[in-house]
Amino acid sequence: MRILVVNPNTTASMTALIGECARAVAGPGVTVDAVQPGSGPESIESHYDEAMAVPGVLDEIAAGELAAYDGYVIACFGDPGLLAARELAAGPVVGIAEAAMRTAAYLGRGFSVVTTLSRTIGHTWDIARQYGVADLCAGVHACEIPVVELETDPEAYATVLGACRGALERDASDSIVLGCAGMADLCARLSHELGVPVVDGVVAATLEVEKLVRLGLRTGKRGELAPPPAKSFA
Amino acid sequence: MRILVVNPNTTASMTALIGECARAVAGPGVTVDAVQPGSGPESIESHYDEAMAVPGVLDEIAAGELAAYDGYVIACFGDPGLLAARELAAGPVVGIAEAAMRTAAYLGRGFSVVTTLSRTIGHTWDIARQYGVADLCAGVHACEIPVVELETDPEAYATVLGACRGALERDASDSIVLGCAGMADLCARLSHELGVPVVDGVVAATLEVEKLVRLGLRTGKRGELAPPPAKSFA
Amino acid sequence: MRILVVNPNTTASMTALIGECARAVAGPGVTVDAVQPGSGPESIESHYDEAMAVPGVLDEIAAGELAAYDGYVIACFGDPGLLAARELAAGPVVGIAEAAMRTAAYLGRGFSVVTTLSRTIGHTWDIARQYGVADLCAGVHACEIPVVELETDPEAYATVLGACRGALERDASDSIVLGCAGMADLCARLSHELGVPVVDGVVAATLEVEKLVRLGLRTGKRGELAPPPAKSFA
Amino acid sequence: MRILVVNPNTTASMTALIGECARAVAGPGVTVDAVQPGSGPESIESHYDEAMAVPGVLDEIAAGELAAYDGYVIACFGDPGLLAARELAAGPVVGIAEAAMRTAAYLGRGFSVVTTLSRTIGHTWDIARQYGVADLCAGVHACEIPVVELETDPEAYATVLGACRGALERDASDSIVLGCAGMADLCARLSHELGVPVVDGVVAATLEVEKLVRLGLRTGKRGELAPPPAKSFA
Amino acid sequence: MRILVVNPNTTASMTALIGECARAVAGPGVTVDAVQPGSGPESIESHYDEAMAVPGVLDEIAAGELAAYDGYVIACFGDPGLLAARELAAGPVVGIAEAAMRTAAYLGRGFSVVTTLSRTIGHTWDIARQYGVADLCAGVHACEIPVVELETDPEAYATVLGACRGALERDASDSIVLGCAGMADLCARLSHELGVPVVDGVVAATLEVEKLVRLGLRTGKRGELAPPPAKSFA
Amino acid sequence: MRILVVNPNTTASMTALIGECARAVAGPGVTVDAVQPGSGPESIESHYDEAMAVPGVLDEIAAGELAAYDGYVIACFGDPGLLAARELAAGPVVGIAEAAMRTAAYLGRGFSVVTTLSRTIGHTWDIARQYGVADLCAGVHACEIPVVELETDPEAYATVLGACRGALERDASDSIVLGCAGMADLCARLSHELGVPVVDGVVAATLEVEKLVRLGLRTGKRGELAPPPAKSFA
Repeated sequence: MRILVVNPNTTASMTALIGECARAVAGPGVTVDAVQPGSGPESIESHYDEAMAVPGVLDEIAAGELAAYDGYVIACFGDPGLLAARELAAGPVVGIAEAAMRTAAYLGRGFSVVTTLSRTIGHTWDIARQYGVADLCAGVHACEIPVVELETDPEAYATVLGACRGALERDASDSIVLGCAGMADLCARLSHELGVPVVDGVVAATLEVEKLVRLGLRTGKRGELAPPPAKSFA
Repeated sequence: MRILVVNPNTTASMTALIGECARAVAGPGVTVDAVQPGSGPESIESHYDEAMAVPGVLDEIAAGELAAYDGYVIACFGDPGLLAARELAAGPVVGIAEAAMRTAAYLGRGFSVVTTLSRTIGHTWDIARQYGVADLCAGVHACEIPVVELETDPEAYATVLGACRGALERDASDSIVLGCAGMADLCARLSHELGVPVVDGVVAATLEVEKLVRLGLRTGKRGELAPPPAKSFA
Repeated sequence: MRILVVNPNTTASMTALIGECARAVAGPGVTVDAVQPGSGPESIESHYDEAMAVPGVLDEIAAGELAAYDGYVIACFGDPGLLAARELAAGPVVGIAEAAMRTAAYLGRGFSVVTTLSRTIGHTWDIARQYGVADLCAGVHACEIPVVELETDPEAYATVLGACRGALERDASDSIVLGCAGMADLCARLSHELGVPVVDGVVAATLEVEKLVRLGLRTGKRGELAPPPAKSFA
Repeated sequence: MRILVVNPNTTASMTALIGECARAVAGPGVTVDAVQPGSGPESIESHYDEAMAVPGVLDEIAAGELAAYDGYVIACFGDPGLLAARELAAGPVVGIAEAAMRTAAYLGRGFSVVTTLSRTIGHTWDIARQYGVADLCAGVHACEIPVVELETDPEAYATVLGACRGALERDASDSIVLGCAGMADLCARLSHELGVPVVDGVVAATLEVEKLVRLGLRTGKRGELAPPPAKSFA
Repeated sequence: MRILVVNPNTTASMTALIGECARAVAGPGVTVDAVQPGSGPESIESHYDEAMAVPGVLDEIAAGELAAYDGYVIACFGDPGLLAARELAAGPVVGIAEAAMRTAAYLGRGFSVVTTLSRTIGHTWDIARQYGVADLCAGVHACEIPVVELETDPEAYATVLGACRGALERDASDSIVLGCAGMADLCARLSHELGVPVVDGVVAATLEVEKLVRLGLRTGKRGELAPPPAKSFA
Repeated sequence: MRILVVNPNTTASMTALIGECARAVAGPGVTVDAVQPGSGPESIESHYDEAMAVPGVLDEIAAGELAAYDGYVIACFGDPGLLAARELAAGPVVGIAEAAMRTAAYLGRGFSVVTTLSRTIGHTWDIARQYGVADLCAGVHACEIPVVELETDPEAYATVLGACRGALERDASDSIVLGCAGMADLCARLSHELGVPVVDGVVAATLEVEKLVRLGLRTGKRGELAPPPAKSFA
């Protein structure tokens, strides 16, 4: 089984980190490749960034189809391009936000999301509602660290940890959902220190794709998610 | 006052039709220009089409800002790129789906949407929910005419009329919302023949922008819709 | 085009203020008349007040029909008698609460309502839910100034300003909706001082009616909002 | 204990019928008086009728307070003036729609409402949502008999029975809620013939008031439903 | 009329207290018997406790049917076994949580629940949602007194009183709902001291059953709540 | 890794079937044991059956804890005892209904559930709402085959197939969710013949547990799902 993990931004070090985390959990016989678009923003922190990143994501999905991947992960917490990718791909496509939030749904009454910038909070609630998990989402909290500084800011771990502590206290929640692919490598340490389940979407989505492929399940193609109608592009 | 109407697809005849409809309702002293992206799909009938159209829409908004337009209409029923456009523009940005559905909300208990292809029905419900009008939306009905054939199919009017009749009967609704910018020129004739209000989003959004500009109202910029953070693009 | 703005309470100075604000935004060729019921409460601050005001509002609508007005505004934030007025009138009828809240929906993720007395907060949530904007309403805040004292209390502006500041802080909202017609004249000053969009329903509703009339849209009459059945009144 | 049942319309024969039904179920030591407003419509079949009936209802409540009634029933399925009446009365006030629908909630998964004219269906859904029972309401069905003809149309019982049968079949519901006070006398016969629970709001509300009074429960007065602020009326 | 009140836990003193409270409100000619299961937990404070208590509750309902009771109360705030009991019983079955919350719905805009341990808060919200009263539930507050200590802790009344005061302040609610059958005897004193309606489910449910029996209403049996299919048990 | 699959009913042949299906998908190094309670109903088709089955399920979970299983599947579509089991177990517990419905959420806009008896439809909607997937559930359809006859009725496969075809047609859904563990062995054949994804909860839940265990995720224990308080049982 071959899974393609698409990092929607163009920061190579983050692609490497994501690929490493995904490979660390993949089952025996599962190959995980991590790629990033050839063009687009270095990080996704606005609706504009997301919109500009999506065509590159879809290019990677289309290339993945030519290379016959069995399934795909979209590794940015807003799940950019998810439905379009499902139209393009024969196999399953899973976003890390949906995977993280649905995974947390198995672990208790409610989860808190800890994300990067507060300007993304509204979008997180939007997708929580769309995925049907808004009642389970006890709160969304920003730690105000820009995405690319997660790797460089020496205080990043401590700041995220503090935001998690505040979220658990304020929301009386059962678990934490990490709201950015760039936090994937902090997951185990946070969980250990906090003493609660901490869900990273990168690994959750990777194993969700593995699960779907093993079950022979793919996107339903009889309606909305059939391949896009052929047409000319200017 | 200068309003820019952006047709998200690249079919020039549709841009012309949309511009004409918008200009026909604009108030005295209001200039309406209609443009289309330099690249992108000829019509938008899938999540993929929409995703590929959005960067071109945002380019037109950015160009519009340089030209100091007072406000913008996004003239495709899925409102592609709406939130990103609001980040970019200083003045108000209105999508034709939100404008049509919120306008219909003033006209009675419920409206029926008549759209092009059935594969877009799910997306219409998604945005109805997002805009808070799902309880008012009594049904979404496809007439199965591809967007570009609205202009060429000699049966198009009759087919849309039949779909409207079926919708009113089945949904017991008070009005019709047209689910495609390409139906804008059918609006008056349909309303006359059906004897019910028929709402076209192109004209509804144009007058909504005019209304907002006259009231001095613009997108709130203190959080989610502030200008996107500056960053490098690969 | 002739628009009738009905102030549901019987305080003439407020009718004058409302009429002035509405006329200030009306387009060229649009006449705005402002009236008040011949009998009823001097202000509306309870369900009882609202119930007692409605027959007077409907009398004014009926008189407006005889005078062939093109459309109507109901200028009290609870939108008293709105659906009944739609049954009576041939042209469109718009309430200031629905107009203010739906207008704010174009300006960002969420708005805060700043209203007069806290006893009206529940009713505001009720109509927000009914209009489908409850998810967009980030909070409702009372400044505890009775309606008639908005004009006389020298601290009124400062108190409303403080309530707006508190609301923006607490709700992390993008805009303010003024929850009383009697605040219409404070709108521009508040917006200037707060640096965020402030929506007054009186002007929003006036331009909404103008928009609907220009589009030839009127209340759908094939069901719930058909003229009331003729019957005897004791 | 003394309960005042207010028939919001001015048809004396219906007041008599309602009073009789309420008295038939009242407990030992409970006096039930039935009254109607001095002025208003002969029946309530539109938003306009309802609006015009409410001041008369509130006059009867105010008179009831002078006469020291322990509690009140508002006996029209739209519950006209309910919240205003709660502001006026010291004791509990119960509407027949809320009582019928909440009573049916104890009897199974879902109920079907059978009402008079189809133009009232939207309002029934509105109050079902407001009362939190919309998920339990499996359908609302009109038998298209005007209110005053329930007493005179020789086919009325058969028509209502047919509408109930259709509703049970179509909605797969567990019980019937009668959507008009004028159907109160049909309840037992319908239940017997249909073999399912049939809930009439007049008797349900009467016993609900009796229950509340016996429990010493009255409207909470610390906020929205405190007595209306004193003020001048023009 | 004979009503059987089933205390789902096995603490005899609580059964006595519940029976006493129920009998104190029952109407003339109404006999109330209070029983408890032969086996099961001494109190219900977890999902596990509730699950283990249910078979004993159903045994008591089945025994009640043999003894031809007219209706039943399930006297634990989580309403354990309610739907199963409705399948078994011919007459109506009412849980104290649904009765308390629906009764409070007649008394104002919103109620606050004051319960025992915070670990039950999630379950309370679950049933509030299920019963359609979540919008009316302004908050759920724990006083952290274990069920069995309500009778023995000398500070119990003061602690519950304090929790009620905090709830009213924080939730701006109109009434209090007591979240445990073991608080039934505190109801009158709390209401007197707080000056707001306080609803105890034990008495509310008892009078609800009395009301339903007097109206001849029983569980609808044409679908989900028909008697369970006969089958072998290992 | 050792996973315990608990069949909540006491039909040994169904336990065998479920165990077989689960083992067929389990990954390398994963041991799956399937058990059933020592006492309880032979099948679960009513609220009563479910209530009587739960203590047996919890006994198996408790025994599983002594045997140090890593995670658990509850293999009956109503997910009986799920929250109580989460209190008891240290590792994750997954119900087949939640697993099937959340898995289907990755495959398209909406799914149809095909279940056994129509009396279970209401419960299915209840849990769909509780799990947040009600908007994705396009319909619930009964094939009216009792659970134990799924194995013996020679027409069972054809009947289920017909119900699936009807569901896809009527609901315009993207996939089928099988509403009974006893249908697990029909899944592949149905999917092949229908040409759409068919999700069986037994295998979906088994791989979900495997996924959670591999990710080191377990039930959050800081609140509602902490081990039940110790107490005496009568």
